[in-house]
Amino acid sequence: MTTLSEHPVDVAAELKLALRRLAKSVVVITCRHDGRNYAMPATAVDALSMDPPSVLVCVNKSASIHPAIAVGGRFAINILHRNHEILSLHCEKAKGEERFSLGAWRNLDDAPVLSDAQANIVCNVDARFEYGTHTIFIGRVLDVGTFGEIDPLIYVDGRYTALTH
Amino acid sequence: MTTLSEHPVDVAAELKLALRRLAKSVVVITCRHDGRNYAMPATAVDALSMDPPSVLVCVNKSASIHPAIAVGGRFAINILHRNHEILSLHCEKAKGEERFSLGAWRNLDDAPVLSDAQANIVCNVDARFEYGTHTIFIGRVLDVGTFGEIDPLIYVDGRYTALTH
Repeated sequence: MTTLSEHPVDVAAELKLALRRLAKSVVVITCRHDGRNYAMPATAVDALSMDPPSVLVCVNKSASIHPAIAVGGRFAINILHRNHEILSLHCEKAKGEERFSLGAWRNLDDAPVLSDAQANIVCNVDARFEYGTHTIFIGRVLDVGTFGEIDPLIYVDGRYTALTH
Repeated sequence: MTTLSEHPVDVAAELKLALRRLAKSVVVITCRHDGRNYAMPATAVDALSMDPPSVLVCVNKSASIHPAIAVGGRFAINILHRNHEILSLHCEKAKGEERFSLGAWRNLDDAPVLSDAQANIVCNVDARFEYGTHTIFIGRVLDVGTFGEIDPLIYVDGRYTALTH
């Protein structure tokens, strides 16, 4: 536990502790580029505007999916269900297209989508903004699907959890 | 429940349904400008980069806090505890500085901070990006505090809830 001070010793370390408290829905960001499928588990996803319908995702420039989104210009956000914890862990550990070996993935023209995800949000990159190690991709939403009862997988304090009923 | 289609009738309406499934920590964004304090409950907040330590918030251009952040260049993110539901509702309904009449607020030089928030993250606006109805403010983190056990207030499916233990 820390308190605000005028001169924190290590802002990045303190910020990491604070962000452990910002609970997040877990998603898998996907795209297809040049005949290959890409996937990355992520939590830095937000609603942006309804005019136009848009969302944003923050992607580390070192992630393999980064150039595929940057060049291909399309991506999908798949919001995970609480039952998708193993899928998320697999997607984190596996490499390349092996990431799709677990889960009910199906191929759309723009990106693979997870059939039993809480929601699929397919986007066209409409703007991007680089800052530090990351790019913020703004996705103009092209197509949307939802599935099942509402019970998303949550990441908080370095672990997976879910909501009370 | 909807399915992906090539030509959705109303993308914004479908997107709203999908985003009800993206669980979010509830925060109150605050700032001080020209001797006045501003506050806005929000959920569109993300970790961005650790190099430099930074976060982003999405703020509707019509919000009263928008010009105060845009001109003042400072803001704070206060991550709410599950016990802060009434504070969040009050902050949503009240106007102007009346928003601070409930809760353990204290004034720092840059912004009011909620003493018993899960975390306070004080930022300097380092970049901004306008898109549609919103501005994405990128905050370079200046100072951080955390407080208490980790149990954030969550907003999902149009209602407040919390995490399982």
